[in-house]
Amino acid sequence: MFNVANTIESSNGPNPKESIQKERSNQKFDPVLMNHFLEGSKKTSELNRKLLQQMERDPILSSNPNYYDLSKDQQRELTALKIERMSKYMEVDSKEENHRRLSLISVFDPQLNTRIGINLGLFLGCVRGNGTAEQFNFWANTKETSKLKGIYGCFAMTELAHGSNVAGLETTATYDKENDQFIINTPHIGATKWWIGGAAHSATHAATYARLIVDGKDYGVKTFVVPLRDSNHNLMPGITVGDIGAKMGRDGIDNGWIQYSNVKVPRFFMLQKFAKVSREGEVTLPPLEQLSYSALIGGRVTMVLDSYRVGARFTTIALRYAIGRRQFKQGKNPLETQLLDYPLHQRRLLPYLALTYLISNGAFKLEHTMDTTLDALDDAVNKNDMVKIGKLVNEMKTLFIDSASLKSTSTWLAAELIDQCRQACGGHGYSGYNGFGKAYNDWVVQCTWEGDNNVLAMSVGKPLIRTIGEVLKGKKAKGSISFLNNTQYLNEEAILTSVSDIEDLSMVLKSIEVLILRLCKDSLDTIQESNGVYEVVSNAMVTISKLKAHHYLLSEFLNRLSEADSSVKPYLVLIAKLYATAIVLDKFSGDFLTYSVLSPKLMGEVNQKLIPKLLAEIRPLTINYTDSFQQPDMILNAPIGKFNGDIYENYFGVVKAQNNHFHTKAPYSSALEGMLNRPSLNDRQRGETSDEVASILSK
Amino acid sequence: MFNVANTIESSNGPNPKESIQKERSNQKFDPVLMNHFLEGSKKTSELNRKLLQQMERDPILSSNPNYYDLSKDQQRELTALKIERMSKYMEVDSKEENHRRLSLISVFDPQLNTRIGINLGLFLGCVRGNGTAEQFNFWANTKETSKLKGIYGCFAMTELAHGSNVAGLETTATYDKENDQFIINTPHIGATKWWIGGAAHSATHAATYARLIVDGKDYGVKTFVVPLRDSNHNLMPGITVGDIGAKMGRDGIDNGWIQYSNVKVPRFFMLQKFAKVSREGEVTLPPLEQLSYSALIGGRVTMVLDSYRVGARFTTIALRYAIGRRQFKQGKNPLETQLLDYPLHQRRLLPYLALTYLISNGAFKLEHTMDTTLDALDDAVNKNDMVKIGKLVNEMKTLFIDSASLKSTSTWLAAELIDQCRQACGGHGYSGYNGFGKAYNDWVVQCTWEGDNNVLAMSVGKPLIRTIGEVLKGKKAKGSISFLNNTQYLNEEAILTSVSDIEDLSMVLKSIEVLILRLCKDSLDTIQESNGVYEVVSNAMVTISKLKAHHYLLSEFLNRLSEADSSVKPYLVLIAKLYATAIVLDKFSGDFLTYSVLSPKLMGEVNQKLIPKLLAEIRPLTINYTDSFQQPDMILNAPIGKFNGDIYENYFGVVKAQNNHFHTKAPYSSALEGMLNRPSLNDRQRGETSDEVASILSK
Repeated sequence: MFNVANTIESSNGPNPKESIQKERSNQKFDPVLMNHFLEGSKKTSELNRKLLQQMERDPILSSNPNYYDLSKDQQRELTALKIERMSKYMEVDSKEENHRRLSLISVFDPQLNTRIGINLGLFLGCVRGNGTAEQFNFWANTKETSKLKGIYGCFAMTELAHGSNVAGLETTATYDKENDQFIINTPHIGATKWWIGGAAHSATHAATYARLIVDGKDYGVKTFVVPLRDSNHNLMPGITVGDIGAKMGRDGIDNGWIQYSNVKVPRFFMLQKFAKVSREGEVTLPPLEQLSYSALIGGRVTMVLDSYRVGARFTTIALRYAIGRRQFKQGKNPLETQLLDYPLHQRRLLPYLALTYLISNGAFKLEHTMDTTLDALDDAVNKNDMVKIGKLVNEMKTLFIDSASLKSTSTWLAAELIDQCRQACGGHGYSGYNGFGKAYNDWVVQCTWEGDNNVLAMSVGKPLIRTIGEVLKGKKAKGSISFLNNTQYLNEEAILTSVSDIEDLSMVLKSIEVLILRLCKDSLDTIQESNGVYEVVSNAMVTISKLKAHHYLLSEFLNRLSEADSSVKPYLVLIAKLYATAIVLDKFSGDFLTYSVLSPKLMGEVNQKLIPKLLAEIRPLTINYTDSFQQPDMILNAPIGKFNGDIYENYFGVVKAQNNHFHTKAPYSSALEGMLNRPSLNDRQRGETSDEVASILSK
Repeated sequence: MFNVANTIESSNGPNPKESIQKERSNQKFDPVLMNHFLEGSKKTSELNRKLLQQMERDPILSSNPNYYDLSKDQQRELTALKIERMSKYMEVDSKEENHRRLSLISVFDPQLNTRIGINLGLFLGCVRGNGTAEQFNFWANTKETSKLKGIYGCFAMTELAHGSNVAGLETTATYDKENDQFIINTPHIGATKWWIGGAAHSATHAATYARLIVDGKDYGVKTFVVPLRDSNHNLMPGITVGDIGAKMGRDGIDNGWIQYSNVKVPRFFMLQKFAKVSREGEVTLPPLEQLSYSALIGGRVTMVLDSYRVGARFTTIALRYAIGRRQFKQGKNPLETQLLDYPLHQRRLLPYLALTYLISNGAFKLEHTMDTTLDALDDAVNKNDMVKIGKLVNEMKTLFIDSASLKSTSTWLAAELIDQCRQACGGHGYSGYNGFGKAYNDWVVQCTWEGDNNVLAMSVGKPLIRTIGEVLKGKKAKGSISFLNNTQYLNEEAILTSVSDIEDLSMVLKSIEVLILRLCKDSLDTIQESNGVYEVVSNAMVTISKLKAHHYLLSEFLNRLSEADSSVKPYLVLIAKLYATAIVLDKFSGDFLTYSVLSPKLMGEVNQKLIPKLLAEIRPLTINYTDSFQQPDMILNAPIGKFNGDIYENYFGVVKAQNNHFHTKAPYSSALEGMLNRPSLNDRQRGETSDEVASILSK
């Protein structure tokens, strides 16, 4: 019987729903239990569900396909309405609820997340990191900023001519002793604060990075709270702001530029946890100033978690589609083949599924480490416990390396993941309504902001190379890089010698360590040949940083396996094997082979035997693995990826709902009609070029 | 003295203009002469300049920054106005002028190019490829379609449930013998024509792919001209069209969906060069039907040329910026370091510069081969010269392999190039006004349409693997893949044994051949172990296809070097060396090493010595190389990449012009102000949750 209910059929159409539901009915493990592992705990998993239910029903916060049809102005307005709505939740949410709610929002409306994060994460993070406890309490709580009330902060760090080089910023804050105030000034176009999220329309105050000048002496870049708008939201004197305008993505955010023209702020608006200017102009610069950059770590850690969430969203969409979609008949099968039954399609997508599993665990671990370290540091600084501070400064260094390598590596990989998932959905991946385009455009700025990925990666590679130099001189490497002490592996011995070695994940972990070790040593030699210039090996530094991130992800995953429910554990091991081979070994195959960590023959076997075998094992479990991400349709916001699997009806339904096809002519149709029905060229030239005229004019 | 002319300064700002102009004044070769090589000839280079001058002055065709602020509806309207304008040029342009004009437009307004290309390239290409000479003459010339007059064609191939598998399309064309007509029908939702460019608003006719059904028998997919709209642009009976709506990019194109509900068209609207239905319903299917797919080759070849053009645009922008922009001070230098003086920045960008040079030459060569082959084929078919046709069918097979491998490889690389160039410009790359975002979004569909890149790549890998099997049985491989006859290299002997080998580009070419050979043989073995299933090596097929494309690019570049002016030749060799090492050897290092084409030690030297050496040689010549692309500011449409190098003034000027900063409040400001100035929660809860009420209610 043909369908006459919705779309009237005169022969049978495709039935993707059936394929997906059939595979779902064969599940081998409980996706809810798996989700407990993915989200770090049963508690977080259940909290997420509660929050998502609430937001899916919320008339303002819920996502819908219309999101993809909004202009920049409409996106900004909707985002502002959502912020207003969120401010009400923030008055009743617990701290944990607020944190998880924002994390979930980051995947289905990243621009909303960012626009709130500018105030809560960057502005208050800067005040927390650079201000005294009293300063933080005033700006965060007394002023109720942390509830999006009273004031709205932004983070005025980067300038038109300076991004990564914070120490080179050129805005000035000159102490005016006579009036006990700072004069904030933008000396020239290059020092215009640029890209400042929230500045164009929202912010009332800016945490401003400016050079402290006292009595003509430049003390370097410090931070100041500078009011931009009064309580009527009118600009303060001396403040100029403008809109940055069109961006690649995140149109919902009002990024702006700021110029300060000799703006006066009280002396106590300087954030003075580390540096302080007395009434008489005496400058105190305590030795801990290096910790002032801790304001940026929170953002980096969050981006690793965001990488997990965006990976979960897009692998779910692309893999459901790959199961429901069929293309090309094979042999006598009356149905065409499901996309995911093609080995190439498995090879293209399933490694990213595995990657997402590994990032989830690493992200939660990193977040936990950061929370405990920063709390301990705040505590030690408040108590002025110098021994503890010394110990924590070392932990901060490790945290800096881990967060920098993971932020850069996982945001790059997530960008690649979105792109590959989109391509794997063919033309339908290019449709706005399946979310890939907007998500990619919104995402990729993560590779640039809060530490450009290449700059961060070099900041990881450099200390590792330096450490191997110290190890060779007899010093011991400590903490997460203590594997650099194993200099016995600097020879050319192969570490992985058989497929069974590779199936042993602790051996793969060791092979990453050895590769890092050899790369660092080789780089060190090159640097020494170049008179100590590190830049000559910057390309290797980036590779070292990426490998360090994979080392973290794999080792923390192995560490946590024992916590997993025994019913899901084998499937975690299976997915980690795919990650280890298809993401780590294959993507760095040139490096593993150059440094003889395994033989060419074994690498050939990995690619031709082992990876295909793992893919074949994961293939029937795919829907089980993606359902474990527990992504509701609201998060996916992609008709081809919906839970029910009714790809074509869902998708056609959205396209028709968003585009009225009962209007059959475009508003500009007359231009086209005029063109098609135009008179001949000779007529339009008033007959002046006709043969007849030619004979007259050429006589 | 401080600048008080435009932006008032109180201290000296950056001077990027000076850096760029200084490097430009040190040029080592004439960029105009180099452009003659890049554009294939002096004649084309000069024609381009003439056309660009004309378009830069044209009030409708010229690009400007406003382009980046247009909504979807505005883009579509502007594109329609540009089409109307173009129709007037097409009445006076020569064939060559029209062709080159469209090629240039493809880089600064790709959606305009596509929207015209739908009619000229796809619709008329389909009529040319599948129709008789008389049919082509009628639809192209009698109806003046080739001048965008009378009718406007679109190309209705893909369906909602079928893309790559053209043979599986489900729209039907049933012969109605009684009335000597075809009945075109969409049987179900899956057969809805989908993604059809021009259908939503523009097209009057659709070249429709549908299954030919005669007397209940299915003869497979054929092509039919089906009118969609009448001369008043109203829809024909039985035609439903709708708008596809939001897309990742190319918003200026009115992609649509079409449903045919038993639409009647005369029998002679079937395109019948190959298949024909007589008045009595007799179906003739001549053996040459395989040639009907030649309609798609033109688009693929064009995309290789587009890859060159987009590469020229974005390497110019990113490299000029990298020369003007400074970041971080080194040592005692009073100025910060130019970005391009960092080895990592050179490593990130200069290989794409080299790639663009290689693609240009390959693209023009491929275009020339296609033009001559298709013309010869048309001629032979018209004369029914079976001997010549047989020979040309073989040439078509080579053309198919070359165009498929080059289309997929170069469109992927161009996407990567745009993305990497964007990242190398940091935050300013993310600005809409520097063009990267829109260009990327517009570009990436090239990896999917007119042959999905992975599907195309497999269609290249498969025959190469099959050929090596035949060679091993004693047959000879011919034409561009005759290197597969060199089975003596199937052993594990290294081909490149020293750095000087690698500096000899003919040796690198040989090494690519040997790698392809070994990969094909290894894949063949795997296929044989898997009972002849080719899909198991599909990942290797993609690699083979990419390598085949690089083989084409490098060999054609070497072939053409002798034509180059002697003053530019050494610089062409230098750039080709960078391409050979950083694009070919490095990107495929895992494969080269797995197949022992060179030793791990030598690969290490390539990365640590040779590539850095080449980069250092190219660094001072960079502005010379990019100026050779002769990209006017209108094509670049990116203030940070303009010729004058005044990065910050140009960029700030565009941002201010596009975003009025004299309006200091957003239209939605009241929502934010209401939030910030809201009463306390207790007040808004009417005091019902106060301690006082608590004591009452809890009594």
